[in-house]
Amino acid sequence: MAENLMKNGHSLVVHDVNAAAVERAVAAGASAAATPAELAAQVETVVTMLPNSTHVLEVYAGTAGLLSTVSRGALMLDSSTIAPDVSRQLAAKAEKAGARFLDCPVSGGVNASKAGSLTFMVGGAEADMAAARAVLGCMGGNIVHCGAAGSGQAAKICNNMLLAVTMIGVSETMNLGVRLGLEPALLASILNSSSGRCWASDTYNPVPGVMPTVPSSNGYQGGFGTALMTKDLGLAQEAATSSQTPTPLGSLAHQIYRILTTSGYAEKDFSSVYQFLKEQEGGK
Amino acid sequence: MAENLMKNGHSLVVHDVNAAAVERAVAAGASAAATPAELAAQVETVVTMLPNSTHVLEVYAGTAGLLSTVSRGALMLDSSTIAPDVSRQLAAKAEKAGARFLDCPVSGGVNASKAGSLTFMVGGAEADMAAARAVLGCMGGNIVHCGAAGSGQAAKICNNMLLAVTMIGVSETMNLGVRLGLEPALLASILNSSSGRCWASDTYNPVPGVMPTVPSSNGYQGGFGTALMTKDLGLAQEAATSSQTPTPLGSLAHQIYRILTTSGYAEKDFSSVYQFLKEQEGGK
Repeated sequence: MAENLMKNGHSLVVHDVNAAAVERAVAAGASAAATPAELAAQVETVVTMLPNSTHVLEVYAGTAGLLSTVSRGALMLDSSTIAPDVSRQLAAKAEKAGARFLDCPVSGGVNASKAGSLTFMVGGAEADMAAARAVLGCMGGNIVHCGAAGSGQAAKICNNMLLAVTMIGVSETMNLGVRLGLEPALLASILNSSSGRCWASDTYNPVPGVMPTVPSSNGYQGGFGTALMTKDLGLAQEAATSSQTPTPLGSLAHQIYRILTTSGYAEKDFSSVYQFLKEQEGGK
Repeated sequence: MAENLMKNGHSLVVHDVNAAAVERAVAAGASAAATPAELAAQVETVVTMLPNSTHVLEVYAGTAGLLSTVSRGALMLDSSTIAPDVSRQLAAKAEKAGARFLDCPVSGGVNASKAGSLTFMVGGAEADMAAARAVLGCMGGNIVHCGAAGSGQAAKICNNMLLAVTMIGVSETMNLGVRLGLEPALLASILNSSSGRCWASDTYNPVPGVMPTVPSSNGYQGGFGTALMTKDLGLAQEAATSSQTPTPLGSLAHQIYRILTTSGYAEKDFSSVYQFLKEQEGGK
């Protein structure tokens, strides 16, 4: 993401707890800041990408955080996937500091990040979208305004909850069909032309050999790791609980992926739930 | 289905416990038989469409059943949706009687039945498929050979299990997104261009007003009833249990639809699970 910003003519000041990542950016022409506060004092636009809500709160609102020195009118784009409530809190804090904060979680993974073709789901004021698009457009091809602060996070966790449910559903269905004597590629083609059709079946089928170029046909390597999916499902469950929303399948999907992460599947692609189910009682 | 067979030049002998249905077919040119045995004695091809496994076993293998009088070489096509094991049993019994039995469950519902555009998922010997296609082609536009006896049932219940999981998944996701402040049509469009994409979202969205011509926008009338979906999910669970296949989401989907059938939703379209979830705690 930093490389693509530089390729598009932006001067960067960078900060990361990973020294190697800082060195790489500096070698490519960026300058380094020792703390988030030092960084925010020097720039008009901030882009953050962090693992979870705790890190984002610390980097923005902690001691030596971005908001302690941010300049009036600065644009702050957080691409982390975190709780919508935390994004809304930070948007309010940024407003108090005279800055503009938008939540901009991404989808597309490492490959889309390198290619500059990420999708950004953006929550924030319509008035700030033109400025946000100018920056995000250097890193992504599809920028969707989802509504007010927190809406980008809401859209991201909704999509990923549905993705988890459909992936487990396809995996259960393919495993059942195979055990009932159906040939996997034929069953996939029947589902894909019927009402069971979904992305997890027609674009990312979890059964090895059904589609040649997806992680399931490559030992479940690459792709979107089970540990990351489990994190996103945890966010969905937090949001469901705080909004008193019943999500029976979303909740069970979360628990299934949590079991996978402690059963040797944490670093495998999330479609490996097929292999996990297949290895249970009755499998060969 | 009988009308479409007659339209295509077939002479029909009919039997039904519903006298009105028999009268209607007779008025259209069919002759009536008093029992399945009387019927099978007069024909070369039998087509059956019955509610569940018990009825199919009785009509084929009971006293005065079809198999007691069926002629050698006769073609027997069962379009009921029943347990794959029962279809396999009947295929074996038919073979002993010198007849050829294929399971041919349908999808498409009443409208496709009237239009002669049903999809048939067929299980049986490849050698019998040409004869089966000649008859089924009068009633349906898409005839898929799924493999040996029972495979048609397996494909049907696999698709419908996945359909139930995706429909509940979409309903949970849309309900969660709306409670988090997303506009339903925008959320649907984000899902439909992302990895959560599925038939239940892009062709049959369960949220009223998102798509104008589906049951959700017409009070959940018409379409595929919750009671029928519950029956198919019960067959999926029978097959999963007898094949020792873990189906955690399929099992929970079955229980959710079972609760719906006893909560006033039995006759509503199965997409009404959205309304059911929406009315729970937190709903407005």
